[in-house]
Amino acid sequence: MADFKLMRMLNQKNKKKIVLLVLDGLGGIPMSPGGLTALEKAATPNMDILASDGSLGQIITVRPGITPGSGPAHLSLFGYDPVQFEVGRGVLESTGIGMKINAGDVAARGNFCTVDKDGLITDRRAGRIPTEEAKPVCDKLNNISLPGVSIEVRPVKEYRFAVVIRGDGLEAEINDTDPQKTGVETLPAVAREPGSQKAADIYNEWLKKAREVLKDEPKANACTLRGFSTDPGLPQFDEAYGLTAACIAVYPMYKGVSALVGMDVETFAGDQPTDEFAEASRIWDQYDFFFIHIKKTDSYGEDGNMDAKIRVIESVDQALPELKTLKPDVLAITGDHSTPCKMKSHSWHPVPFLLWAPDTIRSDEQSKFGEKWCAMGNLGTFPGTDILPLLLGHADKLKKFGA
Amino acid sequence: MADFKLMRMLNQKNKKKIVLLVLDGLGGIPMSPGGLTALEKAATPNMDILASDGSLGQIITVRPGITPGSGPAHLSLFGYDPVQFEVGRGVLESTGIGMKINAGDVAARGNFCTVDKDGLITDRRAGRIPTEEAKPVCDKLNNISLPGVSIEVRPVKEYRFAVVIRGDGLEAEINDTDPQKTGVETLPAVAREPGSQKAADIYNEWLKKAREVLKDEPKANACTLRGFSTDPGLPQFDEAYGLTAACIAVYPMYKGVSALVGMDVETFAGDQPTDEFAEASRIWDQYDFFFIHIKKTDSYGEDGNMDAKIRVIESVDQALPELKTLKPDVLAITGDHSTPCKMKSHSWHPVPFLLWAPDTIRSDEQSKFGEKWCAMGNLGTFPGTDILPLLLGHADKLKKFGA
Repeated sequence: MADFKLMRMLNQKNKKKIVLLVLDGLGGIPMSPGGLTALEKAATPNMDILASDGSLGQIITVRPGITPGSGPAHLSLFGYDPVQFEVGRGVLESTGIGMKINAGDVAARGNFCTVDKDGLITDRRAGRIPTEEAKPVCDKLNNISLPGVSIEVRPVKEYRFAVVIRGDGLEAEINDTDPQKTGVETLPAVAREPGSQKAADIYNEWLKKAREVLKDEPKANACTLRGFSTDPGLPQFDEAYGLTAACIAVYPMYKGVSALVGMDVETFAGDQPTDEFAEASRIWDQYDFFFIHIKKTDSYGEDGNMDAKIRVIESVDQALPELKTLKPDVLAITGDHSTPCKMKSHSWHPVPFLLWAPDTIRSDEQSKFGEKWCAMGNLGTFPGTDILPLLLGHADKLKKFGA
Repeated sequence: MADFKLMRMLNQKNKKKIVLLVLDGLGGIPMSPGGLTALEKAATPNMDILASDGSLGQIITVRPGITPGSGPAHLSLFGYDPVQFEVGRGVLESTGIGMKINAGDVAARGNFCTVDKDGLITDRRAGRIPTEEAKPVCDKLNNISLPGVSIEVRPVKEYRFAVVIRGDGLEAEINDTDPQKTGVETLPAVAREPGSQKAADIYNEWLKKAREVLKDEPKANACTLRGFSTDPGLPQFDEAYGLTAACIAVYPMYKGVSALVGMDVETFAGDQPTDEFAEASRIWDQYDFFFIHIKKTDSYGEDGNMDAKIRVIESVDQALPELKTLKPDVLAITGDHSTPCKMKSHSWHPVPFLLWAPDTIRSDEQSKFGEKWCAMGNLGTFPGTDILPLLLGHADKLKKFGA
């Protein structure tokens, strides 16, 4: 893990700019042994120039053999050991849509569901009602009030919402109320620790009132709650690394993790790499550090669609000159985990990593960006949590240690 | 080290089969700088196919620069940091011959020796009496009884035996009684800690009675004890990794380590690779994990006989198709440490590692199994204790970490 004490001791300010460009689920494996991965197959002339001049390596974001979820994987990219710093799904989801989670608040992720006249679940996702339909339902939930706490509900996407309660003496060791199957009733919120009893009681009271206000909804006539969690207290980017940092991402989860480490989450139009790079250009003078997140590489990996994954990688490559015109001092291109099309899921395989920094780079023998070449690159195989110190070093943002 | 908390949290059952094939002392160095090692020289067409489709790397089983003994090296291969988990020689030796060491028992390894009429040692190994001659002598020792404890003696091989005492309040911080030279008397068992005084007293009483019952033996007329030790309390394979595991090995020490981590130790006829693979075939349906140990690579390394070491490696390669017909889902081939023929001893050099898993493998640029190619493989250089998590990952036996 990044040694925060050392980082704080050594960090120094300057005007150099760092870009961390993350293609979600970038790593892959060949469809059959001996073949090529999506990244190895993709035509990436711009990345290959960077690879040729720069340094390659591969990263492990959680532990060898462990398949990372997206939250833990991004914590690692940002320098936080995800085994040490656990961030609950409720906090990730609510932070991702811009809700502020302070120490002592308890956040949960909600799902609308459909129950029959006996209270048995018939659809765990309420017919996947569209976001527009879910918004007025969330408004109804926002009318619920309980003594001694404030409660905030916000829609996330489709049948998903977030609910945060704020008050004194609240803890979040509470089991999910989603039974994970149909034909049964929703579960009560059960505290796993005595300290969480108060929050569990409040959430149960809230769930009871929610059933009343939702009872006439055609689909979303009930709800379940998951991922009860509190502020994980992550060291913040500014004080830990001395960085002002911006997050340029389209999906809520990634905005959530970024907000939790103290990045400013940008709002912009469009969802293509060119849109994201244009946003970086717009705010270029305001920040030291830019986290840019591309989602679709992972999505197509999960679909098992190698051609589409290749096209996304190529679209990022084609847009790359736009990013280079900004003249970043340090540019890293990597993923948060592998999502091999063959496996249609996240995997534990190390993730290719490319580092380019015109003033300080040491070139290796590799000239193309891809898993097999990264494995022979001069950065070796290293933990994701070492990335931030490495980028800071190349940006001359860390003083010499000792005389 | 394998993070056992994480392993327990994430492990999931399925029908996939893992084989860990260990060629003892596999790694080597060239006889003169610039030359080839035994593994690099050996004709290994079957391993080379696996290397070409699969992934190579190299492992360090204890620490960089540290020469591993066989016990610590195997603990590392099984995921246990050997610096953290110390296993005494007494426990290894007695467990290896099938004795059961429970918490609180104290085990020691014994050597028969010859003393003259003044009680001075003339031969520390009692003329290396053959196992058959040692057995009736052990029977004599087994007639010794002492109040409050039960005592069990079993022959190991030639002049070696094991003696275990079982009772209350026994600890094993006791110095060896072997003075490691001739012309002097054997030493008493001296406790290094007050808590071990009781066991030391009992062992001294036993040693006194042993001298009486052995006094008419022509060679084995005395004995020394070494490696006093107790159950190390290693996390067991089933609860730590969720694996049912079998050990297929010829030599007692390796059976001992395997038994200590909860593997079933198999009994079978023959001592050749083909015999060991045939045993794997026989029990294939009963286990998830198969540890197969080949001893002779190390023995010939210790002898400095490179031709013979090459022949053993080639004999394993020739037998390999038999193992492949079982269709393991994950197959790793490695060693526990290096035993370079040039050095005629164990060494600290990293050990070549080959990983093959048809469903999940990422190929690298390497196509032959050998030290220099492993050093360029896509698994990099990694601790031996990471092997188990990696194999579990490839066998889909670990759930995703976080959402």
